[in-house]
Amino acid sequence: MDLFDKLEGRPSPLGEFTSDGYGYYTYPKLEGPLGPVMKFNDEDVIVWSINDYLGVGSNDEVKDYDAEIAQDNSLSSPMGARLMTGNSTEHEKLEEELADFVHKDDAFLLNYGYQGIMSVIHALVDRKDVLIYDELSHACIVDGKQLAMAEKYVFKHNDIESFEKQLERAHRKKNDDGAVLVVTEGAFGMTGDLGILNEMIALKEKYPFRLLVDDAHGVGTMGEDGSGTGTHLGCQDGIDIYFGTFAKAFALIGAFVATDERVVEFLKANVRSQIFAKSVPMPIVKSARKRLQMIKDNPEWREKLWENTNMLRGGLRDMGYNVLPAECPVTPVLTKGSTDLCQTIMRKLREEHGVFVSGVAYPVVPKGTVLIRLIPTAAHTKEQIQKTLDGFEAIKEVVFAEAKKQQKMTA
Amino acid sequence: MDLFDKLEGRPSPLGEFTSDGYGYYTYPKLEGPLGPVMKFNDEDVIVWSINDYLGVGSNDEVKDYDAEIAQDNSLSSPMGARLMTGNSTEHEKLEEELADFVHKDDAFLLNYGYQGIMSVIHALVDRKDVLIYDELSHACIVDGKQLAMAEKYVFKHNDIESFEKQLERAHRKKNDDGAVLVVTEGAFGMTGDLGILNEMIALKEKYPFRLLVDDAHGVGTMGEDGSGTGTHLGCQDGIDIYFGTFAKAFALIGAFVATDERVVEFLKANVRSQIFAKSVPMPIVKSARKRLQMIKDNPEWREKLWENTNMLRGGLRDMGYNVLPAECPVTPVLTKGSTDLCQTIMRKLREEHGVFVSGVAYPVVPKGTVLIRLIPTAAHTKEQIQKTLDGFEAIKEVVFAEAKKQQKMTA
Repeated sequence: MDLFDKLEGRPSPLGEFTSDGYGYYTYPKLEGPLGPVMKFNDEDVIVWSINDYLGVGSNDEVKDYDAEIAQDNSLSSPMGARLMTGNSTEHEKLEEELADFVHKDDAFLLNYGYQGIMSVIHALVDRKDVLIYDELSHACIVDGKQLAMAEKYVFKHNDIESFEKQLERAHRKKNDDGAVLVVTEGAFGMTGDLGILNEMIALKEKYPFRLLVDDAHGVGTMGEDGSGTGTHLGCQDGIDIYFGTFAKAFALIGAFVATDERVVEFLKANVRSQIFAKSVPMPIVKSARKRLQMIKDNPEWREKLWENTNMLRGGLRDMGYNVLPAECPVTPVLTKGSTDLCQTIMRKLREEHGVFVSGVAYPVVPKGTVLIRLIPTAAHTKEQIQKTLDGFEAIKEVVFAEAKKQQKMTA
Repeated sequence: MDLFDKLEGRPSPLGEFTSDGYGYYTYPKLEGPLGPVMKFNDEDVIVWSINDYLGVGSNDEVKDYDAEIAQDNSLSSPMGARLMTGNSTEHEKLEEELADFVHKDDAFLLNYGYQGIMSVIHALVDRKDVLIYDELSHACIVDGKQLAMAEKYVFKHNDIESFEKQLERAHRKKNDDGAVLVVTEGAFGMTGDLGILNEMIALKEKYPFRLLVDDAHGVGTMGEDGSGTGTHLGCQDGIDIYFGTFAKAFALIGAFVATDERVVEFLKANVRSQIFAKSVPMPIVKSARKRLQMIKDNPEWREKLWENTNMLRGGLRDMGYNVLPAECPVTPVLTKGSTDLCQTIMRKLREEHGVFVSGVAYPVVPKGTVLIRLIPTAAHTKEQIQKTLDGFEAIKEVVFAEAKKQQKMTA
């Protein structure tokens, strides 16, 4: 049959969200300067959907710096892949600073987080190796796993018994010249819980493996010095390859892996999306250096982030909302309901209370549940948090009524 | 065994180039403003390795515009995936303009070309479909193919008989609810020849399929109006999905696919690297709109590009160099020799003649051959071309002696 005709019948990972609501539930436009208050359909809304955890994206010093460096650096330079013609002293300095920041020997800059980690996983393992990963891993890890030639085993999310079972299986099945790579996340972006890194690392002695941790949501936000979830949990040394992105706390694009020097050397010659695609533009590299320095210099941003997170969570819980026990700032509110309820919550909060939240329903979360994910940032004010809580208070009867209805239906 | 120990023994796609020469043969630093003359190891060199075909990357109006928009647009905005919080009127306008430029109904902006086309291929086909691709396809297509669930058949580079054989096989083997997607390139970046699109499209009647063309090197440079290789060959309508990147003629990052509206709608809900990764930053979107307008307004840039290409090729051929019969500006010089000769050519031209070229040896090209790939641009001057030809004249004895030696060895 015709491929284009066929596409119309295909299921989408977004489920019912695709059939309607373009520009509202999907592809909404948040206009005006980035920050906790933006314009949606010409109205001011308090935004809880952007991962600008530390407020770097709305920071005036950062904006001024971006404007300043643009005078001498167009977006064109450098051209070509890093390997061919896309390298510069600035790229190398940023790598040194990143390695130092996350307490590793060396780092390798990646032109985009998604393709970066995907190709890193692809490069690291061959047919004789085994790749073990958490079932809740981000799409980029799943795609990287898909590309990898290794045998693949999945373990139940943060379940140490399931993990040990897969480790044991890997060591039983692989030959002596096969190695084991384990991939998990530092802070899980949808549920907000942390990877059980200490427990996992403790199994290295019994079943040797190398550990790659995607700390997209942890870099900058977690750990006393912002160096991520490994530092927060006291096990940064047990992470063999640390992946951080600029897409969240740095409010940029691009990413990096930090690991041993010999591994960086290997990656520089073998990561396909890096050796065959363009380097990070100079303004982004320079801005990343500036933002890193500011994140180091302003530990109080993390304090403010946690204050705001705690105020938001406390308020929601006091009203009876089910806030999942998240250990990073990601604040997931889980309730019973359908895609309809999810859309009702989003619409009512936006239209009646000037509060912009994003929610997901089946198939992203189990059927019959709705997850509203709030991302508090250091830039939110107490007033904005209170106004948001007032909005949740006003809609709670609708939300809780639906939950009761669902409970009855399944009882 | 230990994964990190194991990496040291792994072969790399770069072959012998990895073992030495970091900063020289690999990861060289071209510093200073982007253009035909840049600094390499503190010396001025004429650069033949950057795909800034139209000189957009060194254009003063573009540089001024980048600096101007930076006043109001930091690199932070928008944040989040396009689907969630990364959409804007500017993104949508750029899509309209791109669709119009390449004569298609609609377009979908991609945050990076590599992961963009990869995920588009991944999204388009399922287990029942067949994916047929040219053996010389770029790494991003190969990775996309790898991710795709479809059955995969490869055809010999630009070989219509081989292609028809695979098409016939696909139609014989697939069920009625399976479809066929063909992927090839408009202009091949290493060899400079064009995809045999007309011949391929003519087979649609006999063996229906949809055609995706990666025109990374053709968009902006090929066709009377710059709309690419399909226009140049008079078969743009036969291309069902047109892929263009900003990484070459636009001198930016990002990319797009242009196709039917219903397919764009499908892609917006299904392309994993787009729905699960950050949107294109606003300054890049705005700059892309400006650059597109300038490419449309300055057809004389393409004329200049071809003048320069012809002068360079003519000069090289007159000296006896084997310039492959490339139909796009990519100018590949093929000679017999080893990695050593490849490095000698690069070193001598850089050190003795102030000419910066990039070459590849085995395993990128067959054993015993060396490919020096020159990328002429509209920004090169006649003097720079002459100086480059003088350099090639000066080293030709060394190059040709090696070719003779190789010929004797294999005779």
